[in-house]
Amino acid sequence: MPNNKQRNIIGVFDSGLGGLTVLKHFLKKLPQYDYLYLGDTARVPYGSHSQDVIYKYTREAVDFLFSQGCRLVILACNTASSQALHRLQQEYLPAKYPDRRILGVIIPLAEYASQFENIGIIGTRATISSGAYEQEIKKLKPKAKIIVNSAPLLVPLIEENWTGQDVINKILKKYLYLLKKEKIKILILGCTHYPFLIKNIRRLMGKNCLVPDPGKIIADSLENYLNKHPEFKNTDDGVKGVCNFALTDQPENFLRLGEKFLGKKIDNLTIISL
Amino acid sequence: MPNNKQRNIIGVFDSGLGGLTVLKHFLKKLPQYDYLYLGDTARVPYGSHSQDVIYKYTREAVDFLFSQGCRLVILACNTASSQALHRLQQEYLPAKYPDRRILGVIIPLAEYASQFENIGIIGTRATISSGAYEQEIKKLKPKAKIIVNSAPLLVPLIEENWTGQDVINKILKKYLYLLKKEKIKILILGCTHYPFLIKNIRRLMGKNCLVPDPGKIIADSLENYLNKHPEFKNTDDGVKGVCNFALTDQPENFLRLGEKFLGKKIDNLTIISL
Repeated sequence: MPNNKQRNIIGVFDSGLGGLTVLKHFLKKLPQYDYLYLGDTARVPYGSHSQDVIYKYTREAVDFLFSQGCRLVILACNTASSQALHRLQQEYLPAKYPDRRILGVIIPLAEYASQFENIGIIGTRATISSGAYEQEIKKLKPKAKIIVNSAPLLVPLIEENWTGQDVINKILKKYLYLLKKEKIKILILGCTHYPFLIKNIRRLMGKNCLVPDPGKIIADSLENYLNKHPEFKNTDDGVKGVCNFALTDQPENFLRLGEKFLGKKIDNLTIISL
Repeated sequence: MPNNKQRNIIGVFDSGLGGLTVLKHFLKKLPQYDYLYLGDTARVPYGSHSQDVIYKYTREAVDFLFSQGCRLVILACNTASSQALHRLQQEYLPAKYPDRRILGVIIPLAEYASQFENIGIIGTRATISSGAYEQEIKKLKPKAKIIVNSAPLLVPLIEENWTGQDVINKILKKYLYLLKKEKIKILILGCTHYPFLIKNIRRLMGKNCLVPDPGKIIADSLENYLNKHPEFKNTDDGVKGVCNFALTDQPENFLRLGEKFLGKKIDNLTIISL
């Protein structure tokens, strides 16, 4: 069989488990691509570190994914998207990888949110302090009212698989208090870990506030991007792709929670160093 | 003045803030030494990582402290002590630094605990799964009854300065339930972060269980060690020492909480890379 078909490996990066909530939707929506998921589990969580540290870690992750043949990488991590993406796109790619691309999760979610007037966003300390969401939403809807809050304990609660509902709800109530008081109409989960708690969050926010699953929005946006950029599109779209995983630490925690969430076995897994 | 006086810089290492609960007691008990405190704040927390990752991070930290002139380093971190100390002492020091020493926090606390029959220990996932405390206590008191539990959310709660007492107490209650039920007579706080919550823990454990401040025990043990090892002792004991700080990430969080806890200004601070 002549090998003239172009197949692409899409790199998906997160500091830990969170990006699986995005990958899940990629696999549903775009099953014909190959994926390589990288979780920097030796250094998770990123959310309370400084911009310089997050940039360095993200650049190392992208370098790895490029070295494995990915030409398109999705930062399925709000912290990395808000703190590192712009600098990678402006400084790093043009000098080192002019024919490759990195996409983040902020713009698709900001575009979606800008359909509304009264918008709430929660994220890690780093994501919220970057102001990246406000900046992108204001470009599209300058008069939008935007209420933000950082929710730094949610990632540890999720990564540690805390199941006590009363503690989860009390912590969420504190983080969501002001957003609820301001009667936001949409809440953007600005961290890819948070969909693990989407049921609790929806219940607390009530019927008058939409809490969309960010993974779905990001997958729609990726499909759209691929349609506009045939250079990253597969030409043998009928073939189902494979999904490989790379982690920077031993996989026990990741597998236990990751498989439960992804709803499928994670068996193509390698441990790597960044 | 002839410079024939020997002065020693004692290196104190922790992944983040926790080691300050030990340093505080060093400064009280042994104020005549110079100290260099290193917090690996770009990679905190260590507690849920694998042994290999923790060993690598700890070795890099020790290398830095040695490069700054410390000849004696205290791993003021239970995770590093339980996962990395033995290997550093057995493999690394003899080959690379035969005249330097690294001490941990497990042995002093295990010695103290072994005065009791019915002992409880809480720590990070890594510390508890290492079995290091049981091993050291059993050497001294083979028939001791030891109940352990990992308490992985406490470090994020402390590093994020969560102040809601109901959430803190609910999480503590869950972690301490079995230890209380088994009527332990002493609870070892097997993580140098936990003294930040010592009041809550003492209240929950009640009057029949001793919850000693680990920093005090570790400082007593260091004094004892220095008396037995004159090669690390100062010969000009009348002079008050200085205390410097090195961090691997920007210092905002560290300073806010660290100064509150240490009860003094932290001004001799440098940002370094490991």
